Amino acid sequence: MRVGLDVGGTKTDAVLVDRGGEVVARVRRATGFGPEAVVQTIVGAVDELSAEAGAPRIRSVGIGIPGQVELGSGRVVHAVNLGVEKLDLAEAVGGMLGLPVGVENDVKAAALGAYSLHGARGSMAYLNLGTGIAAGIVTDGRLYRGARGTAGEVGHISVDPHGPLCRCGQRGCIEAFAGGGAIAARWSRASALPVRDVFDAAEAGDPEARALREGLAYGVASAVRVLVLTADVDAVVFGGGLTALGDRLVDDVRAELAASAEASGFLRSLRLGERVELLPAGSAAAAIGAALVGAAIEPEEALTHG
Amino acid sequence: MRVGLDVGGTKTDAVLVDRGGEVVARVRRATGFGPEAVVQTIVGAVDELSAEAGAPRIRSVGIGIPGQVELGSGRVVHAVNLGVEKLDLAEAVGGMLGLPVGVENDVKAAALGAYSLHGARGSMAYLNLGTGIAAGIVTDGRLYRGARGTAGEVGHISVDPHGPLCRCGQRGCIEAFAGGGAIAARWSRASALPVRDVFDAAEAGDPEARALREGLAYGVASAVRVLVLTADVDAVVFGGGLTALGDRLVDDVRAELAASAEASGFLRSLRLGERVELLPAGSAAAAIGAALVGAAIEPEEALTHG
Repeated sequence: MRVGLDVGGTKTDAVLVDRGGEVVARVRRATGFGPEAVVQTIVGAVDELSAEAGAPRIRSVGIGIPGQVELGSGRVVHAVNLGVEKLDLAEAVGGMLGLPVGVENDVKAAALGAYSLHGARGSMAYLNLGTGIAAGIVTDGRLYRGARGTAGEVGHISVDPHGPLCRCGQRGCIEAFAGGGAIAARWSRASALPVRDVFDAAEAGDPEARALREGLAYGVASAVRVLVLTADVDAVVFGGGLTALGDRLVDDVRAELAASAEASGFLRSLRLGERVELLPAGSAAAAIGAALVGAAIEPEEALTHG
Repeated sequence: MRVGLDVGGTKTDAVLVDRGGEVVARVRRATGFGPEAVVQTIVGAVDELSAEAGAPRIRSVGIGIPGQVELGSGRVVHAVNLGVEKLDLAEAVGGMLGLPVGVENDVKAAALGAYSLHGARGSMAYLNLGTGIAAGIVTDGRLYRGARGTAGEVGHISVDPHGPLCRCGQRGCIEAFAGGGAIAARWSRASALPVRDVFDAAEAGDPEARALREGLAYGVASAVRVLVLTADVDAVVFGGGLTALGDRLVDDVRAELAASAEASGFLRSLRLGERVELLPAGSAAAAIGAALVGAAIEPEEALTHG
């Protein structure tokens, strides 16, 4: 059995996965703030999973976390939303649990999980649509990492020199069009679910909401075009908070992709609309991917004993 | 000894490379038009190289050609500029020369050659700036191919929804801003070297030329941003006809990259200006890369006997 945890800014999703890759237990709990509370959240979730499953033998723990993870070290830096500036997470959690611990950036871990759920064939980009926008690229079962850890950072590619100002300082970044944070900041009404509110208001005919909603579709479709025309992935799977919008989101993006296919025979030949899909609502992809990260830190064991 | 040929729309560049990778002979000749003439051009160039070097033993022939090459087959389709709709180039040339022949798309072959000349370390994108714009991505010495052969087709990513109309039908494609063909079509004066003419006229203060020249820098800089933020390559090396513009081209692109670094701390951290460079004028990178393509079709031989 292996444990995978997706540590989010508000909640942590933890799964226990058997050797066949099936989820046999799942718990969710609020994520604590600051290094110690984050470690406690993780250890508590592992204990709860273990109790729920009758104290099985756990071979490894994998953690996906929003922040930069130093490759191979298990050290996390700049996990701003969690109040963590620097933390040797693998050592802290491993020391308390006495288990091997693997740590990965949350989007990259979720990409591995989505790839596994997607049939583990060919190549895929996981496009995370949350407060920010970033992608993880998986080819032949392996994360494409790039030279310095910025592979998949498509959110800060500008696709309109006269577009909205991004928090990064550029104009017209994909994230400035399509990031949940950017849309909330530009939407004039207060709302607990601002992007859903924008979609509803757009359907009611509000012109400001329609412009924001069209911008979101343009930003996400641009990310799809960038990912296919640069990395040529078979599929682009959407995950993250904005996917709670469901078909309304995917239909908008497909319509924008259809418009570029209408204009361009080359784009049409790529069949981009057919390559995009949503993770199912409530998918445990991110936590399952984290379990794969944990399994990968002891590849020989994994191979021999599953 | 191995032969590599870069078959271009107007001329063919052929090199003979020794086992250490050094070019020991080089010939250039006009490329014939149509399938038979293309094959004759290649066979004639190989004969000329062989004669020049005193009839050495040639182990393989590699060919880079503008068009789609079916992976592993040596068959070329849609090499429009050469008047070739469909041609089994490996079989035709191999049959006449009695040698193993490897065939690859010209930009991908040039990417391999540029990577080799660049020190054969880390990851690199070769950005071909010619009539059109396309890139080849090399990581750890291997071409990144993607799922369906469109990896590196950054020329048809739109980076401005209100930008110039591209021949592909979209607006604001990188190629519509920066392709030599697109610039020539939009430049109002007839000229044998239209892009050079645009640069000169811009320096003389012509406002239309300045807008075109700024657009070229925007398009190329956008390609660099896309390549680094998606594939995270260490370096982006420029090749192709437009690189005859030399420092004037690179300085413009660096200035545009500096402007985005000025605006965005994140972009600044990527040091994009330091990652771009030009292939030297007259570089044989494309033909050298083709020789590597030929060598790769018999990897065991290459390993054993160099």
